[in-house]
Amino acid sequence: MKIGVIGLGLIGGSLAMSLKKNGVASNIIGMDANEANAAKALELGIIDGIGSLNDVLMDSELIVLAIPVDKARVVLAEALDNIPSGTVITDMGSTKAGICKSVENHPNRRNYVASHPIAGTEHSGPEAAISNLFDEKVAIICDVDEVAISLLSRVEAMYASLNMRVVYMSPEEHDLHMAYVSHLSHISSFALSTTVLEKEKDEKTIFDLAGSGFESTVRLAKSSPEMWGPIFRQNSKNVSEALGTYIEHLTSIKEMMDNGDETKMKGMMKDANGIKKILNGINNK
Amino acid sequence: MKIGVIGLGLIGGSLAMSLKKNGVASNIIGMDANEANAAKALELGIIDGIGSLNDVLMDSELIVLAIPVDKARVVLAEALDNIPSGTVITDMGSTKAGICKSVENHPNRRNYVASHPIAGTEHSGPEAAISNLFDEKVAIICDVDEVAISLLSRVEAMYASLNMRVVYMSPEEHDLHMAYVSHLSHISSFALSTTVLEKEKDEKTIFDLAGSGFESTVRLAKSSPEMWGPIFRQNSKNVSEALGTYIEHLTSIKEMMDNGDETKMKGMMKDANGIKKILNGINNK
Repeated sequence: MKIGVIGLGLIGGSLAMSLKKNGVASNIIGMDANEANAAKALELGIIDGIGSLNDVLMDSELIVLAIPVDKARVVLAEALDNIPSGTVITDMGSTKAGICKSVENHPNRRNYVASHPIAGTEHSGPEAAISNLFDEKVAIICDVDEVAISLLSRVEAMYASLNMRVVYMSPEEHDLHMAYVSHLSHISSFALSTTVLEKEKDEKTIFDLAGSGFESTVRLAKSSPEMWGPIFRQNSKNVSEALGTYIEHLTSIKEMMDNGDETKMKGMMKDANGIKKILNGINNK
Repeated sequence: MKIGVIGLGLIGGSLAMSLKKNGVASNIIGMDANEANAAKALELGIIDGIGSLNDVLMDSELIVLAIPVDKARVVLAEALDNIPSGTVITDMGSTKAGICKSVENHPNRRNYVASHPIAGTEHSGPEAAISNLFDEKVAIICDVDEVAISLLSRVEAMYASLNMRVVYMSPEEHDLHMAYVSHLSHISSFALSTTVLEKEKDEKTIFDLAGSGFESTVRLAKSSPEMWGPIFRQNSKNVSEALGTYIEHLTSIKEMMDNGDETKMKGMMKDANGIKKILNGINNK
């Protein structure tokens, strides 16, 4: 299949790499607003050629948008205006309600599949691309009823070829759940980093004392502001609600500590331990 | 060397395992308040025999306390009352100021080395013990001037045999730094778990949608309440201060989101990205 990939960072790069490796892509045209990224992807053999949006539209059966969610909305509108009727375009964005809303009345709405593969790392750019990024992960597809069936199948087949499981839901459900199981984790990590960097001005000290627990909770603070700024803005209502609840829990923990109430603290931790069952689930899925 | 290990959970078990493997321990007597744990450790070959506190005191050159920090204080006092003059006892606790204070006037203070190996996982019990837990990690020793030099060397040699680097500081410094680079991470993780579990009552949904980022930030919420309750209580002043600052940062992030101030959000994330340099340091130490 001839594939166009718009955005050659971690996600677009890893996708191109995987689809070449598994034989699904016969040819991949790539583009990236950052010319150095595009050149690097070509040099690494992740794509077969670099093209304009018009080239991608005219010479792809499947187009994948893997750019920040604010830019994805703009490029999607432009692409749908000119998309050949037999071509499908999908996006990989971490927010779904806004982008679906933005094209709901577009005459070529049936050519667009709103999707989101739940995969990533805290690294960015084509050099961070890895060929097994998507293996055994979940991909969400929203608003399937709006898409032409034959075009939808093409995207489903792509995810199946990557050994992914597809889950269907509405864009609103998607954004609400992601606020809790992904976006809030990123906020907690960014704030943790800020708090510790502010206090521990002597880097050598952190370096000596920080263990694997600290690293684990703060890892996501390495994530790209260019990618996450627009996600947080587009999902601000849900994330703000989740964050409000998180702050309430932290405030209540602070009170328990200030009151020396170890019994309540232990009860809180025991409840939080309930996550064990779910994490075991994640690892076995 | 004849070694006594009091507390045969993850830390005590891993330590015993490592010191047998590297030949430092010629014989290990173990004890655990939980008889099943002690029996399991013996069955797994982690220790050579089970004994009472008196047995441990009479038949060890080096005694290691690897029990929750509230119990460690009680057992340390009892042990120091009866310790032979040529025997050294050390503890592995995550708080140091309180335990050091509790024995500052003890006539056998010179037999006690206050230490803390920065190593662990979120798992508990002797079955969780692993022989390379301490490899290439840091061990902190506090108040070295209070200890008899020959006895101190024995503990330093033990850590050196585990391929650990020893760092020296005051108990107060230790507790302050740990509040930021370890204890706060645990609080953030417990609260994240509580927030998400409360919202996502349908476990299947979390299971489907949660990615590696969520898992990473919430992993520490699996930690033992019995171990962490006393740590938080003993270090409540420092942890409460760190938590207060963390809540302030989160509240300020919530305001940025509610105001739709993406520029400020990106600035905050860019600052938080500064943690990259430090995490690279951790991985290369």
